[in-house]
Amino acid sequence: MKIAIAGAGAMGSRFGYMLYEAGNEVLLMDGWPEHVKAIQEKGLHVVLDSGEVNSQIPISLFSESKGGFDLIIIFSKSMQTEQVMRSCRHLINDYTYILTLQNGLGNIEVIEKYVPKNRLLAGVTTYAAELIGPGKIQALGSGDTHMMSVDGNMSTDLIRIVDVFNDANLNPKLSADVFTSIWTKVAFNAALNPLCTLANNTVAFVGSYKNIKEVVSVIIDEILLVAQAEKVRLDRDEVMDMIFSVFDPAMSGHHLPSMLQDIQNGRKTEIDYLNGAIVKKAEQYNIPVPNNRLIYHMIKMLEKTAVSTEV
Amino acid sequence: MKIAIAGAGAMGSRFGYMLYEAGNEVLLMDGWPEHVKAIQEKGLHVVLDSGEVNSQIPISLFSESKGGFDLIIIFSKSMQTEQVMRSCRHLINDYTYILTLQNGLGNIEVIEKYVPKNRLLAGVTTYAAELIGPGKIQALGSGDTHMMSVDGNMSTDLIRIVDVFNDANLNPKLSADVFTSIWTKVAFNAALNPLCTLANNTVAFVGSYKNIKEVVSVIIDEILLVAQAEKVRLDRDEVMDMIFSVFDPAMSGHHLPSMLQDIQNGRKTEIDYLNGAIVKKAEQYNIPVPNNRLIYHMIKMLEKTAVSTEV
Repeated sequence: MKIAIAGAGAMGSRFGYMLYEAGNEVLLMDGWPEHVKAIQEKGLHVVLDSGEVNSQIPISLFSESKGGFDLIIIFSKSMQTEQVMRSCRHLINDYTYILTLQNGLGNIEVIEKYVPKNRLLAGVTTYAAELIGPGKIQALGSGDTHMMSVDGNMSTDLIRIVDVFNDANLNPKLSADVFTSIWTKVAFNAALNPLCTLANNTVAFVGSYKNIKEVVSVIIDEILLVAQAEKVRLDRDEVMDMIFSVFDPAMSGHHLPSMLQDIQNGRKTEIDYLNGAIVKKAEQYNIPVPNNRLIYHMIKMLEKTAVSTEV
Repeated sequence: MKIAIAGAGAMGSRFGYMLYEAGNEVLLMDGWPEHVKAIQEKGLHVVLDSGEVNSQIPISLFSESKGGFDLIIIFSKSMQTEQVMRSCRHLINDYTYILTLQNGLGNIEVIEKYVPKNRLLAGVTTYAAELIGPGKIQALGSGDTHMMSVDGNMSTDLIRIVDVFNDANLNPKLSADVFTSIWTKVAFNAALNPLCTLANNTVAFVGSYKNIKEVVSVIIDEILLVAQAEKVRLDRDEVMDMIFSVFDPAMSGHHLPSMLQDIQNGRKTEIDYLNGAIVKKAEQYNIPVPNNRLIYHMIKMLEKTAVSTEV
């Protein structure tokens, strides 16, 4: 299958690498020149749990990418989705599927301006990866990938894509309700990422705070109300279990969420697509969400500090 | 007048210095040996707006303090009040007045176990100071000091104390309702200090955040409800004006609140006596205070990070 990865950060590179090594024709695309150059000259360096490998996977800047693709996987940060879609427009033909595996709310709404709903796939993945530096990523453990067509219809093309993911060990699962999957991950991230960022510490550390259950609950309960208004089925126990499972230091508990890494590196965070998106939707329905609102504002202030002091 | 200052940090030292230089018999008391030793050996170094001075004001460790005093002014951090009062017990006689000018709620309740209400004075001051190092403080601008007897009764002793403060240029004002003064300052600190601390930036920076009015309002409105339940008259406009006046960089806007300095230096903060005290009182009255509660928990988490990573 001919696959382009739009956004070759840690996760895009990991997926690209796995699909490429499984025999697909893969092109990574990114907008960071040093990263693109490093991979073009020395290959993609992947630190796996089992050792280190080098992959000769092709990469190009968005502006230099060419060709028609069967599948384009969007892995950019949510604030870049619009720009990435504009940069990918020339790669989309009448048969191209777009799959977003991005975090946060609002990406589907942007992407569906560029592709019909029956060729727009969405999903979430529990795979994790970290960008070590230009051309270098670390692949963390294993995971699975839930996905579905946004219109809810199964097709032979979708089954073909699932097969390709299967062959690449990406553990694809067709999601009965992909919006439930997306919102579950949004709830997970909207609780964990800002708390770790404001506490300036790891997931395990935040999990060890004696009142953590109360703090997480008030955030999640607000998100459940908004999900309900949006007619998205969200299971409170599932979300809470997901959150509390990662507090275990044996899980990814030692991990610094990307939001905290963004702040530490003077970058903007994805808060607008997590708690910020919840607050916006809550306003439409007149649902009070004081906890998500305060968290949103505090991350925005901290982000402003971080971006202004970045050297 | 024979005056002891319990807690010779930045503010205690500044008040002690001003009262001493006005001709009173003043003893600073503190528990930090390096600070006490520095002042005993080299005097108290005070950086004023008008230049630097050295004062030969006496100081001793709490454990080595002796004598009976007309007035003991408590300037310790709120979490140390109980311990400080125990250390001062032997200095209190039947004529001793205790004045607390500390921040936060809960100090009066502790001190009134050690002195009758008619000799317990409370107040707030707008004077500011910073501790530069052992034996060194910086006095910032001017200010005034609102105070009153906790039982609300005027006495000739109180008027004498006000005269002494006047002679020392401490600009004393008898407060019609000292609880209003205390709660006004608590509201001010409960909004400003945690926001600056979570944003990791100055008062002026937080003041420049575009949604700051909304963020401050939700915190203050909760505190107003709790004050009302406590039968403390608190004026919303006065509190908001007080907060918005310091956002001006020409005021103390460049200032890092002590709570942020505490976090940066790996120390515990006064959050338990600000938002934490509001949350506790709100629980008694069944008043929902989600914003103060979340702020409390986030500062506690950040405090845990700060204290655990302090070197």
